[in-house]
Amino acid sequence: MYDMTIRLQPDSGKRLYEQIYEHIKREIIEGKLLAQERLPSTRSLAEYLQVARSTVEYAYDQLASEGYIEARPYRGYFVCSLEELFQMEGERAERGAEAFSGEFSQFRPKENLKEEEQAETFLDFSPNGIDMSGFPFGVWKRITKNILNYGNSELFSQGEAQGDYDLRLTINRYLHSSRGVNCRPEQIIVGAGNDYLLMLLEKILGRHVRIAMENPTYKRAYRIFQSFAYRISVVDMDESGMMVSGLEKENVSVAYVMPSHQFPTGTVMPIGRRAELLNWAAREPDRYLIEDDYDSEFRYRGKPVPSLQASDDHHKVIYIGTFSKAIAPAIRVSYMVLPEPLLERYQRECWFYSCTVSRIDQRILNEFIQDGSFERHLNKMRKIYRGKHELLLEGLRSFQKRFRISGEHAGLHLLLTAKGQTSEEELVEKAAANGVKVYGISDSLVDSKRRKYEKAAVLLGFGGLTPEQIAQGIKKLQEAWL
Amino acid sequence: MYDMTIRLQPDSGKRLYEQIYEHIKREIIEGKLLAQERLPSTRSLAEYLQVARSTVEYAYDQLASEGYIEARPYRGYFVCSLEELFQMEGERAERGAEAFSGEFSQFRPKENLKEEEQAETFLDFSPNGIDMSGFPFGVWKRITKNILNYGNSELFSQGEAQGDYDLRLTINRYLHSSRGVNCRPEQIIVGAGNDYLLMLLEKILGRHVRIAMENPTYKRAYRIFQSFAYRISVVDMDESGMMVSGLEKENVSVAYVMPSHQFPTGTVMPIGRRAELLNWAAREPDRYLIEDDYDSEFRYRGKPVPSLQASDDHHKVIYIGTFSKAIAPAIRVSYMVLPEPLLERYQRECWFYSCTVSRIDQRILNEFIQDGSFERHLNKMRKIYRGKHELLLEGLRSFQKRFRISGEHAGLHLLLTAKGQTSEEELVEKAAANGVKVYGISDSLVDSKRRKYEKAAVLLGFGGLTPEQIAQGIKKLQEAWL
Repeated sequence: MYDMTIRLQPDSGKRLYEQIYEHIKREIIEGKLLAQERLPSTRSLAEYLQVARSTVEYAYDQLASEGYIEARPYRGYFVCSLEELFQMEGERAERGAEAFSGEFSQFRPKENLKEEEQAETFLDFSPNGIDMSGFPFGVWKRITKNILNYGNSELFSQGEAQGDYDLRLTINRYLHSSRGVNCRPEQIIVGAGNDYLLMLLEKILGRHVRIAMENPTYKRAYRIFQSFAYRISVVDMDESGMMVSGLEKENVSVAYVMPSHQFPTGTVMPIGRRAELLNWAAREPDRYLIEDDYDSEFRYRGKPVPSLQASDDHHKVIYIGTFSKAIAPAIRVSYMVLPEPLLERYQRECWFYSCTVSRIDQRILNEFIQDGSFERHLNKMRKIYRGKHELLLEGLRSFQKRFRISGEHAGLHLLLTAKGQTSEEELVEKAAANGVKVYGISDSLVDSKRRKYEKAAVLLGFGGLTPEQIAQGIKKLQEAWL
Repeated sequence: MYDMTIRLQPDSGKRLYEQIYEHIKREIIEGKLLAQERLPSTRSLAEYLQVARSTVEYAYDQLASEGYIEARPYRGYFVCSLEELFQMEGERAERGAEAFSGEFSQFRPKENLKEEEQAETFLDFSPNGIDMSGFPFGVWKRITKNILNYGNSELFSQGEAQGDYDLRLTINRYLHSSRGVNCRPEQIIVGAGNDYLLMLLEKILGRHVRIAMENPTYKRAYRIFQSFAYRISVVDMDESGMMVSGLEKENVSVAYVMPSHQFPTGTVMPIGRRAELLNWAAREPDRYLIEDDYDSEFRYRGKPVPSLQASDDHHKVIYIGTFSKAIAPAIRVSYMVLPEPLLERYQRECWFYSCTVSRIDQRILNEFIQDGSFERHLNKMRKIYRGKHELLLEGLRSFQKRFRISGEHAGLHLLLTAKGQTSEEELVEKAAANGVKVYGISDSLVDSKRRKYEKAAVLLGFGGLTPEQIAQGIKKLQEAWL
């Protein structure tokens, strides 16, 4: 069920039911609430928001009367389909996809146009935002159809545990040419998402692992290691990334790093620090580095930085990457490259785990890469994201007196650190009051002793916003902060 | 890489290279070795089989000269595509699929017809065999195309962690009507295969679980629990299944059972034993029963037995099932129904694990079930499997003097237990010498102290064989054993 987080503003001059109504409508229009999704019951939402149940009922009634949601007897309220106004077919596909990531007017129900035009749009600088406008739906469809037409029943049989050899060969070539990864296809394991691959890695590394993480870091990975009951040591960072001196002090065997573009700081680990990390790992047989190369595809200035794995001469790096970011979140295909000692352990102890990606999906992806579509798509997306990135950087020029801007040149977000006296909450709240959602860096802190980042800093993700929205967002942030 | 298990027979009168050549050719024709798959290196296969390397090289050369495999410089030997002779298109689809599960002549390379006609076919009574001949390729293709044509980019966005609500609603209805499962869609977690769902369950149940299993049992589940480092207690079975008296003696909190059709014995757990198990679980708050309902779809006599979950009044049963068996192995969609206390724990501690099935695949499956195709497919397959099952039972009549036949009425395999003095090896080897592969029950034993089953018993799986092959297999087994 949909997780409803509404920020009610009792002093905004708008009634509570109006705020609830507008929030949900916006979520539906922006595609965050999807057709057929069930809304929370009026009772539970009222409890959660600490408002009268009738307030929620009134908001729901209003939404239902306008066709955004519908009541189904005994089952609750469900989001209606806006599909007739928003389809992804033929020539309209690309525009439709753009609409999805922001241009709401295209699929706005006609009867509400007037009201909508007056309503303000909430701009979300989510660091997880992705631009689906460049996704080649047509190509994907064609490949899928071809594979179903010309494939045989082998497609529907169970494939190899590590993933189909063909796909691993293709991934191998791609990783070698784009990321300098040195491996054989035999070292690659294909799995349905990074979370799954980390679960599998736990089975390979064993239960009693002591792992080092940076702080702040990627919170999802932290949560996953926590759920493994791994003992997590938080190691300090400097401007080059994880400090090896800090690592030495901790009794850990594995370190989790993002050398190409650390999340959330955006730090690119220089070669010197990489060598230090690799040396640390090489000193003990059971030490390993997990390299999460989560958004390495997007780099805007300078040469692409090769992966840490590319410099690994001692079989110490476990390399993990995904197609979810570069292609689409629904493409549940990630890959893990195991160093030889762990590959042996996998083959001895974990060979029986079946592959989690269907052969049909593996075949579609393989064809998508092999026929050049993936490369074309990446180049196109690099250009799109570079444009947004430059627009944002340019627009943030006037912010430089009050903020340090970092983490640029790569990835899909920037970091703004306040120079003067302000707090992260103040930045987030002022932005929100002006209709812009930005993300405090403290959300990515993982040390329980340290709930606040030393400086007031926020993330601005630009992947999911259109150029117009970025420009508008900058204007609103100027009003809010400068 | 392909796992090569060849049973060389030095006294068979055939040269060793011929046996290797024939084995690999058969694997290719039967679709067990797939196009583009890499063969082991001549060196490693020679080492493994303990033969001279030149013997393997000679076999590979012969296969290459006949177009079954090809050498690729610096990379090894790969299986060639036989697709031009074996396609799954239009009207030929159903016949093609039948061919896949056995009628080799249809896609046998022409130049080898004469030789092939003389060669004997190896008949594999694998308990994992599945008949793909009934799979509605056309329907699956049509649904996929429709979804890609009329879907929008929402399809490519990340869905809910537990799986799309619509699919869970559909699974909920299906499980309720066909298996009597009582649950809300909120309790269902959709995942890419049972192995993955068990991994997720480990995160919910925690690391220090003591689990009871039957013996013999489903070996893959045993291996998975082993890789969790769960303490596994083997509990004795009688003709009703796991003995609760044995369970009481062990200090365990979770028991893994297959009440509808135990693998490999085929035991159907009667209601009395089910009640005993449920009572055992109800006595302590942390006790749970894992019900693996792996092939409940196929039952040939009497009323379908409802699931154990259907009788569970105390939130004690974790119900797991899959579409891989009822639809196709490549459909990587399984489901787990969590009892309320574990659902709470999941939502508190494991909510961040992303769903492992792509939304497109979820939508295809949902449509396949909702439009009635799944029901039609199941009914068709029940009829096909019932026919094979009856043919096998009928053919085994003459075996009744020397064997007890059990595990009938459900599932895709039978158990033959020898009444007289013989050993499992003897049965397996005599069958193999006559060109038939049967499976010793000892393969499913999990207690390290007990490597042999008390009686000589073998499994006969019939799912993947054609009626003709079953008849031929019975004839050969008669010659071998009677």
